[in-house]
Amino acid sequence: MKAIALDLGGTKLSAAIFDKDGKCSDRQYCLLNNRKGTEVGKIITETISVLNEKIRLGGDALGAVGVCVPGIVNPETSEVWAPNIPGWESYRLKDEIAELFADHNIFVVVNNDRLCYLYGEWWKGNAAGCSDVIFIAVGTGIGAGIMSGGKFIRGKNDIAGAIGWMGMSTEYQEKFKSTGFFEHYASGPGLVNLGNELITEKGLNSALLKTGKFTTEDIFHAWKSGDNVAAVILKYAVKYWGVAVANLVSIFNPEKIVFGGGVFGPGKELLEEIKNEAQKWAQPVSIKFAEITSSLLGSDAGLYGAGRLALDEIQNKSNEF
Amino acid sequence: MKAIALDLGGTKLSAAIFDKDGKCSDRQYCLLNNRKGTEVGKIITETISVLNEKIRLGGDALGAVGVCVPGIVNPETSEVWAPNIPGWESYRLKDEIAELFADHNIFVVVNNDRLCYLYGEWWKGNAAGCSDVIFIAVGTGIGAGIMSGGKFIRGKNDIAGAIGWMGMSTEYQEKFKSTGFFEHYASGPGLVNLGNELITEKGLNSALLKTGKFTTEDIFHAWKSGDNVAAVILKYAVKYWGVAVANLVSIFNPEKIVFGGGVFGPGKELLEEIKNEAQKWAQPVSIKFAEITSSLLGSDAGLYGAGRLALDEIQNKSNEF
Repeated sequence: MKAIALDLGGTKLSAAIFDKDGKCSDRQYCLLNNRKGTEVGKIITETISVLNEKIRLGGDALGAVGVCVPGIVNPETSEVWAPNIPGWESYRLKDEIAELFADHNIFVVVNNDRLCYLYGEWWKGNAAGCSDVIFIAVGTGIGAGIMSGGKFIRGKNDIAGAIGWMGMSTEYQEKFKSTGFFEHYASGPGLVNLGNELITEKGLNSALLKTGKFTTEDIFHAWKSGDNVAAVILKYAVKYWGVAVANLVSIFNPEKIVFGGGVFGPGKELLEEIKNEAQKWAQPVSIKFAEITSSLLGSDAGLYGAGRLALDEIQNKSNEF
Repeated sequence: MKAIALDLGGTKLSAAIFDKDGKCSDRQYCLLNNRKGTEVGKIITETISVLNEKIRLGGDALGAVGVCVPGIVNPETSEVWAPNIPGWESYRLKDEIAELFADHNIFVVVNNDRLCYLYGEWWKGNAAGCSDVIFIAVGTGIGAGIMSGGKFIRGKNDIAGAIGWMGMSTEYQEKFKSTGFFEHYASGPGLVNLGNELITEKGLNSALLKTGKFTTEDIFHAWKSGDNVAAVILKYAVKYWGVAVANLVSIFNPEKIVFGGGVFGPGKELLEEIKNEAQKWAQPVSIKFAEITSSLLGSDAGLYGAGRLALDEIQNKSNEF
């Protein structure tokens, strides 16, 4: 019995087949190319059909489909709200997939990307074996997948883990309104905001980074080249990431915090500094127990998480009989 | 079958008998009077013996004992670390109580005060019926009892909920070292710190509040009397409490946040302002779903929580047979 996993991003879809031991095969990848609404649904169902045919030709059977989505999944109806996909305000993705298999007993599970990243990393990555662990995803936005006492933290409406909104100030400014304080300064675009503000406020001068004209990648690149301004930007970013770690450690007393997400990659080298910053702020006993690390699976975390969710469904089903 | 509940504070012990419907009787109360170590254990076991005798004389039987303690309960050994009780670094309270009943099948459960406050309020107070709810206890310190998806958040070492350590700044100062940032400014003693700092920094002048010479009660009293400086102190306190609410709402997406604890009482009148402050910072969808309220049980929350924990043990036991 095999599972199909899909990881839907704001701009692309990844998919694969998983067997029960976690072996991943037949990787698929396609760009959304600004598709919206049911067009995105169609790519998903077509991809599933292709993979299902491969499973059938291999002499095996499909047991469940797991999907990782970039947004919020209504815990009662499974409808998806994905802010980056036009027309997905309350998209009935689960029903649409289930209709593909109307005659068969195929389980479909849809979960948000924060929890899928965490679950992937828990299954086959750096959160393996943990009962209390947090995955901090730093990308276009910032979010966290949280497991406490072996259970996912979903919240009343599946919006838990929105740590990009964490306030690390008591002086509110309008510029925090659309993303929240932490995300404003420490996501991918946040590092650019931070850089522009620091350069302007402190009158910094860099050959590589000119106000309003650099990207997150430019910052990391300039930093690698020894640029002083990039070093200042990342020194401040470490403060934000460090206080975020501290706050999550004080609140959850986790055994591990895993940094990942599309932007964080080069930030791996800053983990020691982030931990030092967190140590100043956090509950002193809890921070001693908390290991700070980075993602092992990288951009595959969501796909693996969706795969494991699907395999869980197969397992639960077989336990029932 | 009856339960005995005990609420141990840093300076006093409360106790009572609970029946399965939650009726509370035979309230006991005594001051610790600087007792320490096994002397505190002795008061607890003596109180249990007195209440057990009352149950017996009433023709009923004791089924379980629940204890709320001001500290951390080791999740594996149930040993208690209570920083305010000298000699309770790893106190074997559960074993000591169990020895009283060596011949009988009496269950003993010990849990930390943050979770007991929450559970009391969940059982008979303003958190009733909630699956996702946070109790913020503002007293000598600040801590939170957290329930997410119907489960307590305990952390890997029972230290979860240490929200007094939440950082709402990125500029660390040594004065945060012993209590954490949020507690430094917004606990009972924190309001006094905040007042002294504001009076000094801003050169404020109050007939009622003189630097270094007022208590938390004085601040609330002066505020009720229309004192401007007290109003400024509480305006700032609202910012800290508001950002704390916002951060917890963004992280947990709870349906309710309940303020309580020994100091917060008069702060009830500030709930609307706290919510307004939180609204600026929090994940905008989550904050819409979150009700901000105050404790119904007040200083009884811990006792009721301990009572319910004990009754749960009786219930679980009876389900097993």
